[in-house]
Amino acid sequence: AKPKVGYFPGKSALPNYEAAKKLEQIKVKDIQSIPVVVKETTTIHDAVVTLFMDNVGSLVVSDEDGTLKGVLSRKDLLKVTLGNPASSTMPVHLVMTRQPNIVTIQPDQSVVEAAKKMIEHDVDTLPVISEKDEIIGRITKTNMTRLLLDLTDTLL
Amino acid sequence: AKPKVGYFPGKSALPNYEAAKKLEQIKVKDIQSIPVVVKETTTIHDAVVTLFMDNVGSLVVSDEDGTLKGVLSRKDLLKVTLGNPASSTMPVHLVMTRQPNIVTIQPDQSVVEAAKKMIEHDVDTLPVISEKDEIIGRITKTNMTRLLLDLTDTLL
Repeated sequence: AKPKVGYFPGKSALPNYEAAKKLEQIKVKDIQSIPVVVKETTTIHDAVVTLFMDNVGSLVVSDEDGTLKGVLSRKDLLKVTLGNPASSTMPVHLVMTRQPNIVTIQPDQSVVEAAKKMIEHDVDTLPVISEKDEIIGRITKTNMTRLLLDLTDTLL
Repeated sequence: AKPKVGYFPGKSALPNYEAAKKLEQIKVKDIQSIPVVVKETTTIHDAVVTLFMDNVGSLVVSDEDGTLKGVLSRKDLLKVTLGNPASSTMPVHLVMTRQPNIVTIQPDQSVVEAAKKMIEHDVDTLPVISEKDEIIGRITKTNMTRLLLDLTDTLL
């Protein structure tokens, strides 16, 4: 269900404009989290263990040079593990989302752009990458929820 | 990693105060989504299928009267399905999070309180329930991310 719109009385008030402008100035690098990275040869079993140990929603898959190769969500893992005990020993590169289908963001883009990408592409995590595709962070809907809280706490 | 603080220049400016006040006035019922509900006897297999069909992060488990009995996250399901083919036919009540461990919210509470609960208890979904524990909605970090976007769009 789409959220209802219209809880704000209007677009013209200066106070709101100021707050929104500030929100647009916050960059991905200001709030990003540390990425949890596995190799393409990591098994599904080890990936699930890593996901639980680090308590994250998605893992980022890299090659030896730290270049982004894939993303592995709880959903990707659940799809392959259900009723399939042989999946435990499979390497993650068989089930990960790979290029050109990975939705990424760069550190100097705004958090508003990151939020837009998450909603449009229906993903919970975006790998933060350099221009050379090096993995440098991770931004999630948890970061967005914290930002909403920080926004309220800081502004009041 | 905790988000960095201090991207806002100060707490004293009136414009910010106004925006934050408005954020605090938005209620859970204004942005909540439709809950995806299964019964306690639903199998793990059917629960995973429902989770994929409805494309949600968590299912809410109810008894025949629509009363909240449990919550089932992708994480709960992944924990039980990995390397365990027999789990497919198990009923969800064996693996769901149950009372008193379910973190819930009521429709008239503010979205700021909902965001606080999600961060403090590290959950992605809160069932929205009435005073009689009837399931009436679901609020997620996706709703929070959309709210952040709506906030920006509406205010600019």
